[in-house]
Amino acid sequence: MAYELHYWPMIQGRGEFVRLALEEAGAAYVDVAREDGIDGMLAGLDGPPRPPFAPPYLRDGDLVIGQTAAILLYLGPRLGLVGESEADRIWTHQIQLTLADAVAEAHDTHHPIASRLYYEEQWTEAARRAEDFRTHRLPKFLLWLERVLAANPEGPRHLVGHRLSTADLSLFQLVEGLAYAFPRATERVLADTPKVVALHRLVAARPRIAAYLASDRRVPFNEDGIFRRYPELDG
Amino acid sequence: MAYELHYWPMIQGRGEFVRLALEEAGAAYVDVAREDGIDGMLAGLDGPPRPPFAPPYLRDGDLVIGQTAAILLYLGPRLGLVGESEADRIWTHQIQLTLADAVAEAHDTHHPIASRLYYEEQWTEAARRAEDFRTHRLPKFLLWLERVLAANPEGPRHLVGHRLSTADLSLFQLVEGLAYAFPRATERVLADTPKVVALHRLVAARPRIAAYLASDRRVPFNEDGIFRRYPELDG
Repeated sequence: MAYELHYWPMIQGRGEFVRLALEEAGAAYVDVAREDGIDGMLAGLDGPPRPPFAPPYLRDGDLVIGQTAAILLYLGPRLGLVGESEADRIWTHQIQLTLADAVAEAHDTHHPIASRLYYEEQWTEAARRAEDFRTHRLPKFLLWLERVLAANPEGPRHLVGHRLSTADLSLFQLVEGLAYAFPRATERVLADTPKVVALHRLVAARPRIAAYLASDRRVPFNEDGIFRRYPELDG
Repeated sequence: MAYELHYWPMIQGRGEFVRLALEEAGAAYVDVAREDGIDGMLAGLDGPPRPPFAPPYLRDGDLVIGQTAAILLYLGPRLGLVGESEADRIWTHQIQLTLADAVAEAHDTHHPIASRLYYEEQWTEAARRAEDFRTHRLPKFLLWLERVLAANPEGPRHLVGHRLSTADLSLFQLVEGLAYAFPRATERVLADTPKVVALHRLVAARPRIAAYLASDRRVPFNEDGIFRRYPELDG
């Protein structure tokens, strides 16, 4: 049976990390809200007995799983996108959670006060937070990923071991998003992280990912998503 | 061999979620930085081949695991603090990640601009963010937990199934922290979440947890941690 992904249809957002894993694996899935609208997705948040807190969530038969990192933890072994050993799996997940932290901080650059308010209601605070993100946090995250790649005993092509994992796919998406939202700041840091750049390219060139990115299944970046291009926040 | 927990010694912080699990299980562990200072902890962040991004991290023999939720995912089965089925385990982890989101948002009430700056450098922004947190986010998280308890087919005593899990212990700590940081706002919401209150009490009364809380191993809340009592942020 096809996986059901439930997520906001008009943005990449956190759902994109799940979409990339499903696409890379060639898995059968339905992006439910893009086909049928968001009513079913919203109803699922009220559904007992185990209601997710927020989209995205995945339905696999009777099982419903929310939280992006938990979805990828569940899908990794099923899609062949994680190593076999417990050590590799928990390390992959640890990287995934750190990527999730980076994503949350990127979001908060344009919404440092409240998600439910408009950007225009918090743009002065956003300018301060974005400056700290560009100057300190963005480099810290990308330099850590570079260090992880450099320290991989099986070589710097992948974050974990010698194979593609959900973490590699998510690194790709983080770099895509940062380069969209903060083109100048990201370019500066990427000049110092050649292994991150190489892994980003490797993922983009995977045949199924390349086909996906060229398809209309890939929602373009926009100013409703997590990664938003507000030039004033790029310093 | 005893587990090694590496975390900042002067605060409860994120390490406390791990401490509570180890204490409840009566596991042998060393809180390394509290015994030997933070040099070893900081050195571990530089240690190849798999450096954690930040404390807390756990060392179990050769394995090093960072990210609070990943540590609890790893410890859950070993400490008997998670159900047997994959469905129970991924649901427990999903709750854990949602609790982690609540913790991060509680932190950002006093540091909405930058973790590396002092509160006094961002108190005007903090006032705005804290108002949104008190009014919208804190109720949303606690009411979701209440709903999860109410919807548990095995009864509302525990978040998952009929047994104590790492998620229950973390709910306890979240409520403790919120009640410390936002006593008035939290009391108002807890009036509407009797099942959350009952689970908080159940955890506090567990013999090993009660002994731990009364010991000097429990660091008191303070204004260096994640949950800080700044009365002006409690509305």
